[in-house]
Amino acid sequence: MVRVLGIDPGLQRTGWGVIDLDNNRMRHVANGVVTSTQSLTLAERLDQLHTGLIEVIRIWTPDEAAVEETFVNKNPVSTLKLGQARGVALLAPARSGIPVTEYTPNAVKKTVVGAGHAAKQQVEMMVSTLLPGCDIAGPDAADALAVAICHAQHAGNRSLANSMAAHPTRNGRKYR
Amino acid sequence: MVRVLGIDPGLQRTGWGVIDLDNNRMRHVANGVVTSTQSLTLAERLDQLHTGLIEVIRIWTPDEAAVEETFVNKNPVSTLKLGQARGVALLAPARSGIPVTEYTPNAVKKTVVGAGHAAKQQVEMMVSTLLPGCDIAGPDAADALAVAICHAQHAGNRSLANSMAAHPTRNGRKYR
Repeated sequence: MVRVLGIDPGLQRTGWGVIDLDNNRMRHVANGVVTSTQSLTLAERLDQLHTGLIEVIRIWTPDEAAVEETFVNKNPVSTLKLGQARGVALLAPARSGIPVTEYTPNAVKKTVVGAGHAAKQQVEMMVSTLLPGCDIAGPDAADALAVAICHAQHAGNRSLANSMAAHPTRNGRKYR
Repeated sequence: MVRVLGIDPGLQRTGWGVIDLDNNRMRHVANGVVTSTQSLTLAERLDQLHTGLIEVIRIWTPDEAAVEETFVNKNPVSTLKLGQARGVALLAPARSGIPVTEYTPNAVKKTVVGAGHAAKQQVEMMVSTLLPGCDIAGPDAADALAVAICHAQHAGNRSLANSMAAHPTRNGRKYR
């Protein structure tokens, strides 16, 4: 079994979602949002996000983490702000010794919805369908669960490829 | 006495510089560069920067920190990359309970060189002049010392203003 933490970084709201992948079957574990207080300094807000994510990792003990690659915004000030939150989001699992993989937004949408240019609501609906019974804490948590699902699917494919590689003649040809 | 840590963030190379401010006199303490390994993942590289800065803070025990505000680059990919390193640079002192102040590049240059649009070499030369006898570990460390000097000067003005406020009639009029 592999436990995956997905993170959707944002300075105001950073979504997170934890799922288990057991024999290519996914199960929802937990999800939520870490927020920062607008009246604090930027450094203090980043500290709030970091503390929140470290707490999530401590409680849910994921084995692997996945973070969506950021859309490079047309507004450079927004890009910088998001970059700062993203640095902290990547750091939290790295500091905990958890490997972090990044996925493009299109890869996440393609995995979850089947199309690279899906609307936000479609992503949330598909996350609910793929993880039945989960109570999603809002759009940021839904996006975080979506990137966790994307990673789980890639991890599933990887372990399949690994088992094929271990038995290279199973299907009559070698997997690369 | 106040000990100030200046940081010039960058994913590849993050400069740092520590100075003491004693009765409005500045003294160089230490400076250097924390680097990250290009072959590692982004999360691992941010962890390297964070670990390096936490180590600098542990050894040199600054009271206050200063970070240059980032030029919003025309290249959004560079802006995002810098933002990520910057988030980690702001986080390290914040996690250690050290207040962090941000200064625009122009404010730093104006304080150190006397002009808002000084060249990099002018900054390094003036840093050497203001902190005689210091051995600067390269341009990133010089920029970090420059932002520490900028903060020290502002802190000096602040403490002067505070002492004026404590003795409002000293100069015959109240300071606001």
